[in-house]
Amino acid sequence: MNTPFQFEAWLRSHGQRTEAALEASLNSSDIHPARLHEAMRYAALGGGKRIRPLLVYAAGELSSATDPNIMAQTAATLDAAAIAIECIHAYSLVHDDLPCMDDDDLRRGRPTVHKAFDEPTALLVGDALQTRAFEILANTACSSEMRIAMIASLASASGSKGMAGGQAIDLESVGKKLDLAGLKQMHAMKTGALLSCAVSLGGIAAQLSPVQMQHLAKYAEALGLAFQIVDDVLDATADSHTLGKTAGKDAANDKPTYVTLMGLDYARQAAADLHAVALTSLASFGNQAQALQDLAGLVVHRGK
Amino acid sequence: MNTPFQFEAWLRSHGQRTEAALEASLNSSDIHPARLHEAMRYAALGGGKRIRPLLVYAAGELSSATDPNIMAQTAATLDAAAIAIECIHAYSLVHDDLPCMDDDDLRRGRPTVHKAFDEPTALLVGDALQTRAFEILANTACSSEMRIAMIASLASASGSKGMAGGQAIDLESVGKKLDLAGLKQMHAMKTGALLSCAVSLGGIAAQLSPVQMQHLAKYAEALGLAFQIVDDVLDATADSHTLGKTAGKDAANDKPTYVTLMGLDYARQAAADLHAVALTSLASFGNQAQALQDLAGLVVHRGK
Repeated sequence: MNTPFQFEAWLRSHGQRTEAALEASLNSSDIHPARLHEAMRYAALGGGKRIRPLLVYAAGELSSATDPNIMAQTAATLDAAAIAIECIHAYSLVHDDLPCMDDDDLRRGRPTVHKAFDEPTALLVGDALQTRAFEILANTACSSEMRIAMIASLASASGSKGMAGGQAIDLESVGKKLDLAGLKQMHAMKTGALLSCAVSLGGIAAQLSPVQMQHLAKYAEALGLAFQIVDDVLDATADSHTLGKTAGKDAANDKPTYVTLMGLDYARQAAADLHAVALTSLASFGNQAQALQDLAGLVVHRGK
Repeated sequence: MNTPFQFEAWLRSHGQRTEAALEASLNSSDIHPARLHEAMRYAALGGGKRIRPLLVYAAGELSSATDPNIMAQTAATLDAAAIAIECIHAYSLVHDDLPCMDDDDLRRGRPTVHKAFDEPTALLVGDALQTRAFEILANTACSSEMRIAMIASLASASGSKGMAGGQAIDLESVGKKLDLAGLKQMHAMKTGALLSCAVSLGGIAAQLSPVQMQHLAKYAEALGLAFQIVDDVLDATADSHTLGKTAGKDAANDKPTYVTLMGLDYARQAAADLHAVALTSLASFGNQAQALQDLAGLVVHRGK
């Protein structure tokens, strides 16, 4: 008889696993230049929900490997994928917080990198964290084919047709009346692409079949959209202390959001509908998808 | 009887080859978001000495392949490597020119990206050009092993222990009395690493032996140092029109340079000595290294 899945314990252990893997990868006290590496550690360690690494690990649980050697290699590959995608996420936050972008002083309840260090250092921290992500994947101890698949997925998700492109659309949308389709596309690129990539990286590490990867992609698409809708709901309803960042900034900047476009009730219903789609997409995986299921719940119900 | 090597014709044809490959890779008139992709093209196309792509192609000439299929694959791999490294170089220039860094209005005789577009767009252009570099290499039509070797080399050369780290040291050095060893290390990371990487990428594409790669590395190390010394000499002696960027900025910012540290004559002699070392390192390659030899001459004698 299997032990019932304990999501809280899974969350805790995989949060710690992420932190430990990041810590090991960014442990550079003896590396020149010290200040840049210290700022990279400040940006990546010690906080954050770690949603993307958790998605990597949760998708990795779909592996059917039973050979101990393959299981060990899969675990190491998952660690690399988890910290690589977190480095990309951290870089995007550091650059997003800069004065010329969102000009945020607070992130995860602490001063942003350009406040704790300085603006040029923050610029370089973001640049170097991006590079580090690809370096980590290139040096992972799995086949070259798997490494290339992960690098191609991460680059596609984070570049001008993914996250960075979504950021550019977001910039242009200030003061404009973006419609629902435009808002969806912006979100799909700005946050959805990287969340989908997290799930894909876990699937690649777990050596899933193309059909299984398609189910995962459907799950991730619904989850990504739900994630952003919930973000908009939280921005409109929570205070800065709860968020760990400045609340109400989108409304203050006259940026279109799901809440400003369709009202709070519709946005909440849309998130609930997407949650259901995400769960349905996992049906064929059975109990092995429990972590992915529970993560979807966590994303939709966070901040409540 | 072989035709004598015509360096001018080689330079012209490989400059055009670089421009055409970049143009094809960044041809995105139909891709959303249009403004970001337009700015990426502005940053990467239509100018620059293309030293790094030329080094890639020149090292690629050391290939001993005679099978037409392998030669075609090598040519395609060299194109990918050439434009990937130029995307990294272009990203570094865009970020380096930002107000919080060097605050330059002029680059290659044209307004810098944040002047021609705006500051947030320039930030994203740099970010997305870096991503594109790794995406290009991940999708090159050569073996996964070769792609991984190129990605690992490029990441190592451009990250916190390479180019970005060198930038960080450069920032910290303003107003400080960096000694010769410190200056050398800064230059080795800031510009030397990427120049060495260019030569390595060409060597990987040409499938050179480890011993051949060592000779290339020695050549590249001497060339990289000579490149920066000549840069300092030009900054101290040429005018903005000749440089295509603002001249005399280093002295104005009280940054240490080879010229301020050791005087103009010593700096010129050091460049000449390094030129000789670079040529000696190529001895075993014979005539196939003619392009690399002539590029070393170009680097040392540019601006004269």
